Amino acid sequence: MTATTDAVLAGLDDATCDELAGLYRDLHRHPELSFQEERTAGVAADRLRAAGFEVRTGVGGTGVVGVLRNGDGPAVVLRADMDGLPVAEATGLPYASTATTQDAEGRRVPLMHACGHDVHVTCLAGAAAALAAGRERWRGTLVAVFQPAEEVAGGARAMVDDGLLDLIGRPDVVLGQHVFPRPAGKVLVSPGEVMAAADSLEIRLYGRGGHGSQPEHTVDPVVLAAATVMRLQTVVSREVSPFERAVLTVAQIHAGHKENVIADEASITVNLRSFSPEVRRRLLDGVERVVRAEAAASGAPRPPELRTLNSFPLTVNDPGAAAVVRQAFTARFGAERVTDLAPLMGSEDFGVIGAEAGAPSVFWGLGCADPETYERAVREDRLAEDVPGNHSPAFAPVISPTLRMGAEALVTAALAWLTPGDPA
Amino acid sequence: MTATTDAVLAGLDDATCDELAGLYRDLHRHPELSFQEERTAGVAADRLRAAGFEVRTGVGGTGVVGVLRNGDGPAVVLRADMDGLPVAEATGLPYASTATTQDAEGRRVPLMHACGHDVHVTCLAGAAAALAAGRERWRGTLVAVFQPAEEVAGGARAMVDDGLLDLIGRPDVVLGQHVFPRPAGKVLVSPGEVMAAADSLEIRLYGRGGHGSQPEHTVDPVVLAAATVMRLQTVVSREVSPFERAVLTVAQIHAGHKENVIADEASITVNLRSFSPEVRRRLLDGVERVVRAEAAASGAPRPPELRTLNSFPLTVNDPGAAAVVRQAFTARFGAERVTDLAPLMGSEDFGVIGAEAGAPSVFWGLGCADPETYERAVREDRLAEDVPGNHSPAFAPVISPTLRMGAEALVTAALAWLTPGDPA
Amino acid sequence: MTATTDAVLAGLDDATCDELAGLYRDLHRHPELSFQEERTAGVAADRLRAAGFEVRTGVGGTGVVGVLRNGDGPAVVLRADMDGLPVAEATGLPYASTATTQDAEGRRVPLMHACGHDVHVTCLAGAAAALAAGRERWRGTLVAVFQPAEEVAGGARAMVDDGLLDLIGRPDVVLGQHVFPRPAGKVLVSPGEVMAAADSLEIRLYGRGGHGSQPEHTVDPVVLAAATVMRLQTVVSREVSPFERAVLTVAQIHAGHKENVIADEASITVNLRSFSPEVRRRLLDGVERVVRAEAAASGAPRPPELRTLNSFPLTVNDPGAAAVVRQAFTARFGAERVTDLAPLMGSEDFGVIGAEAGAPSVFWGLGCADPETYERAVREDRLAEDVPGNHSPAFAPVISPTLRMGAEALVTAALAWLTPGDPA
Amino acid sequence: MTATTDAVLAGLDDATCDELAGLYRDLHRHPELSFQEERTAGVAADRLRAAGFEVRTGVGGTGVVGVLRNGDGPAVVLRADMDGLPVAEATGLPYASTATTQDAEGRRVPLMHACGHDVHVTCLAGAAAALAAGRERWRGTLVAVFQPAEEVAGGARAMVDDGLLDLIGRPDVVLGQHVFPRPAGKVLVSPGEVMAAADSLEIRLYGRGGHGSQPEHTVDPVVLAAATVMRLQTVVSREVSPFERAVLTVAQIHAGHKENVIADEASITVNLRSFSPEVRRRLLDGVERVVRAEAAASGAPRPPELRTLNSFPLTVNDPGAAAVVRQAFTARFGAERVTDLAPLMGSEDFGVIGAEAGAPSVFWGLGCADPETYERAVREDRLAEDVPGNHSPAFAPVISPTLRMGAEALVTAALAWLTPGDPA
Repeated sequence: MTATTDAVLAGLDDATCDELAGLYRDLHRHPELSFQEERTAGVAADRLRAAGFEVRTGVGGTGVVGVLRNGDGPAVVLRADMDGLPVAEATGLPYASTATTQDAEGRRVPLMHACGHDVHVTCLAGAAAALAAGRERWRGTLVAVFQPAEEVAGGARAMVDDGLLDLIGRPDVVLGQHVFPRPAGKVLVSPGEVMAAADSLEIRLYGRGGHGSQPEHTVDPVVLAAATVMRLQTVVSREVSPFERAVLTVAQIHAGHKENVIADEASITVNLRSFSPEVRRRLLDGVERVVRAEAAASGAPRPPELRTLNSFPLTVNDPGAAAVVRQAFTARFGAERVTDLAPLMGSEDFGVIGAEAGAPSVFWGLGCADPETYERAVREDRLAEDVPGNHSPAFAPVISPTLRMGAEALVTAALAWLTPGDPA
Repeated sequence: MTATTDAVLAGLDDATCDELAGLYRDLHRHPELSFQEERTAGVAADRLRAAGFEVRTGVGGTGVVGVLRNGDGPAVVLRADMDGLPVAEATGLPYASTATTQDAEGRRVPLMHACGHDVHVTCLAGAAAALAAGRERWRGTLVAVFQPAEEVAGGARAMVDDGLLDLIGRPDVVLGQHVFPRPAGKVLVSPGEVMAAADSLEIRLYGRGGHGSQPEHTVDPVVLAAATVMRLQTVVSREVSPFERAVLTVAQIHAGHKENVIADEASITVNLRSFSPEVRRRLLDGVERVVRAEAAASGAPRPPELRTLNSFPLTVNDPGAAAVVRQAFTARFGAERVTDLAPLMGSEDFGVIGAEAGAPSVFWGLGCADPETYERAVREDRLAEDVPGNHSPAFAPVISPTLRMGAEALVTAALAWLTPGDPA
Repeated sequence: MTATTDAVLAGLDDATCDELAGLYRDLHRHPELSFQEERTAGVAADRLRAAGFEVRTGVGGTGVVGVLRNGDGPAVVLRADMDGLPVAEATGLPYASTATTQDAEGRRVPLMHACGHDVHVTCLAGAAAALAAGRERWRGTLVAVFQPAEEVAGGARAMVDDGLLDLIGRPDVVLGQHVFPRPAGKVLVSPGEVMAAADSLEIRLYGRGGHGSQPEHTVDPVVLAAATVMRLQTVVSREVSPFERAVLTVAQIHAGHKENVIADEASITVNLRSFSPEVRRRLLDGVERVVRAEAAASGAPRPPELRTLNSFPLTVNDPGAAAVVRQAFTARFGAERVTDLAPLMGSEDFGVIGAEAGAPSVFWGLGCADPETYERAVREDRLAEDVPGNHSPAFAPVISPTLRMGAEALVTAALAWLTPGDPA
Repeated sequence: MTATTDAVLAGLDDATCDELAGLYRDLHRHPELSFQEERTAGVAADRLRAAGFEVRTGVGGTGVVGVLRNGDGPAVVLRADMDGLPVAEATGLPYASTATTQDAEGRRVPLMHACGHDVHVTCLAGAAAALAAGRERWRGTLVAVFQPAEEVAGGARAMVDDGLLDLIGRPDVVLGQHVFPRPAGKVLVSPGEVMAAADSLEIRLYGRGGHGSQPEHTVDPVVLAAATVMRLQTVVSREVSPFERAVLTVAQIHAGHKENVIADEASITVNLRSFSPEVRRRLLDGVERVVRAEAAASGAPRPPELRTLNSFPLTVNDPGAAAVVRQAFTARFGAERVTDLAPLMGSEDFGVIGAEAGAPSVFWGLGCADPETYERAVREDRLAEDVPGNHSPAFAPVISPTLRMGAEALVTAALAWLTPGDPA
């Protein structure tokens, strides 16, 4: 298969990669929030059509599905996610985003591709084009899925609910990748657990508002929220075994419109990460127990309300399929560029597609940090400071060799399943 | 003087009061934020012009000054404030506000006359008209000041800075009133301290953002803010003498745009109330010490920034002038409707005008609660629950007799200074 | 009466005061805990017997009552309290206490007269001797009460329950004094509220113990206690009107015997001060609400237990009797040495005796700070640092003129009631 | 070797085990604190002498070393620790401890063998006797070490510093065991990491004392300590990667002798557990940063003092030696009774002896829970509630088969090194 792969990848030449770099900069300048990826989806659909795919748009909102039927043979799904984040970009890059949007409450929020989904879209566009261009070298069916709303754990589910499986049938494998702050030029893949399960809750804490000068007539929701946040720290520090991996993050806290008016309520969001149902349950139970008791400690007029915002399943690589991918990567890139992917506390809804389609799935990591910066940071023990990670306002994948490597990884992994063709 | 007062007040008949009630409902439906009181100022200016005042608008932003020169005699300033609050009205009244606006960050915020400034505007409009209609019964100069932005302690200062004193000279007295949740039909007035000094600070707490699943690479600003709020409670509970009157309220706390993204910073506002420079200093010092130390406890990458939002001076009634007002009220309303005004932790910028003009000033309270509800609440020890106070979403002055009483109080107090006229 | 007073006080000459200073130093070196004042009571009883009083000991534990019947006339009770405190003295005085004792749990605790009860005992011993020596100059009955256990609010009650009223009947007045960190040579007296009501609770917070390395199997009582302490701060900072005077102090917190063993429980004590039944109720309710809710937040296996340690009533001076005392002091000491006694948050069980005996009572303050140090501290705004107050390890009354002034005050006030005698 | 083992273990018959049970109950009734194990050491020395060992006592305080030279051959060290804990026993056993002692500050503290060191002593006494009785069946040198003060990480170090290595030379292996709440009858052994590194700090937090009614003149050390405890929770919850194993326990908090006296200081102890130098450093740095900042937040008059109480090294089993032990156990007990020993957050100073002597060491676990209770608890997910762990007041090893299994395990492991003898 290596020869086939080499031949197909010959199409990803320097000129093509320069063109992909232009696409990437354009996408990076135009991040869109989850389920609002209209522009990104349009770009993806145009690319697929130009490459000869049958294209369906609007799948699960803004999702795009391209199918290239190329004779008998296995079916391979390649998936990329498309959404950006409400983060104010602080990379200082010439192509940095200055985009903003409004959230549901009318707040103007900044936008940034702070999780690298623009890399994912670019690489899949490049891989789809390369595989289409080299279609005489393989047989089978290639499906490109551009998925919305990964960040809210809703996009994969929405596409499935909107008929994705009717379009893709039961593929032989579902493949996806994600950029991580590891050296560009490397791929990371392992069998088993890849990413954590995640649950996010929105919690409304009710007080009783009043004049800022008369706290004795109120139930102060800011104090209630603050006490709750401090108490929630103990769920991880005291209630979960140190041998378990668990995170509880309160990433949002909001109360009050005016400095002299005590508000009626406060809201917080809680983000939980776990790798087992038992730990997940312990975290959820701990949150609920603490939240209800702190409201009682404040003498709250109403109990708090907890609402699930989203739930990500565990992401688990099929061991056999992961071994196939790793072997293909090693053959193409050399062993020194293929490393293990240790489990991450981050979460994904990638696994939903394979689970629903009854197909094995493999999710690998793609290094995107400047290798020299990375190595120096490791030496100086400054990784956290000098190599900003996903969701940081300073997250900045290097364009080369990240884009080429990502596109090549998709092609290489896909061809590990597809039947070699018979080029004239 | 009582005869004069009675004669002038005869003009405030039932029909006039009904008309004022209509004005009040209209104002109540259309609250405006501080320094945005365009509509309210327009209504006030129209009323003053119709009554024969010389009118200047746009004083200190949206302020309105009406002057009625009516022969030789003392000059009296009557002041009303005009601004509403970003509170979501929950009174259920037929004329409840549904208005909203956007704040500086683009957030849609609800609006409500939750502090009764619509009552103040209505009463001053009514009093000005009555005094103008009865101008043959007094001699002197009457000045009506409709002030913007009391809620942010900026309006009185802005009007002074914009030339208010050129318009009003050095009056003999500056008079003002405020509705409070006391029985409608009563006025409250005392010499000396009336309302507390207040200082509001906005505090930005800097962390280091990142992915919600990787707290170890971040400095969590939500935890920093929560710890700060809890620690700030000890400034009042441990550092101020129980014999002093002090309040420290954190009315706003905001951090985070996304449930899985740890933000770079959090902001809180701190509202401080005091009656002495020593206590004010202790509060300010305590806030700064706690805020800086909690940032250090978090290992914050940057020290916090404290910015003064506004500072209200102490409101103090001139003893002699207060005695004059009280005597006039007692003569007009009867002793049973005039009570002491105990000092309040609330704050006002009313005092700025008199202080800058070198004139004594008197600020009195105007009951606005349904008397029966009030009495029952006192009996059942349910004042806090059943008689919502200023800034509460349920704050709902009763129209009658509040409006008439407020207009009469302004007329009565003004006539205590003005020279009786010589009606034909 | 002044002449009588002067004549009786002539007996308090320099030699007598020197002797009293020796008594004071001896008492100061030998502080005893509440209800353990054996040695102090013995000294007091010896002094009373030597002066000719009928003496009863062991009243209410270690209380001493001396009665001097001296013809027809009013009956006056003079009361001094005797107990020291578990404080490690840090005055550096040559007569500093190095005494220790064991508490109920076997802990060795340091002892100190950190509240000046040794001054009170010395002054009453001196006053009783002077009045006895000058008995031909007055008629009536003089009762000296040396009370145990003021610090735990138990001694006055214990003496009453043990028959004190049978010994003293219904006196015409009950008088007492207390040293405060005000300039020595001054007395402080006012009508009405003198000292706050106080309630102390012991609270046991139950967790579930275990190995320090396995918090997930425990309910950590240290975290529970810490969260409770932080939350209790909000009772004063948020729930009590700033116009009320209230204190909530957690003075003791204890949990754990070993650094690697999570304990089964923690205990805290809560000390509450108030001047009205409503505020007292609000404090007590707030404590109970917070304590129960925080236990629930921890998932405690048992609810917490709250036990009342002691309750001090309000101390209120009878207005008429206070006026008599103040007049007598002014006549004797000059107006410049008699000042108002502003209400204090500290508490006393002195009031129990008068209330139970149906007699008016007056409690005054006695300055005990070096006047020069005091004045300089006021000028430099360093009172808290340079003039250590009651219960501080550095509390150090100056011997002269404190002792003489205290003895004279007792004599002067007593003679304001006693009938002048007819000396030969 | 199995035949040799079986032959030696034949001496551990039912009568012998009954006798050991009596020894165990006696030791259990008489726990002693670290470095105070006088009685326990006496019992151990007597047993060793009776079995024919050369005995040295007082090694490193109360340590006991018995040497049995039995011809040429390897030298094996068997180690048991002897100290109890300041825990109030709540097992309800007929042989429960009611012993107490005084700590350094004179507090009466309860005593309990809450960590099962009485089992360790009993088993080693039994194993030493059995090996001595069967000495014709093996050749070599057997060393029995009864070590004091494991709980404070001081005993092994103290014995080494007091010449232990002169007595034991360079042995071929050092062996030890510990009871754990796993089914009695099972042993647990694995290569590599066995137990965590631990560091304990005592932290003194300085405030400024005063009267409980005057917090404004003090710096409240109880609030300071509480805020510190809450903030310390965030070191684990926010600063350590969820993929690392770390514990931070504040097991002790003490402040205040009197409910109405604010103390001058508070003390807490912090117990840290880690498996890597990086995590250990992060914990230590986090503690110091938080503690210093919280003192600053309180305006503390002196910075806090941090003192290291003890430091346990990582306990690591030599892979080769662990394999030998596991093989011997499997041969003797059957594979179903030998399981893996997953790393524990608990800590040991066992490793000090081998590390100092330059010998490999193996430390295994010994089940001590009633098997039926254990299995039911697993089924009902009630392990934490129904199977109390080490350091719990309810920790209660079952006598049978724990004691026999523990003695047999020591004999079996020792004989895996000793040269088989040539019994007549």
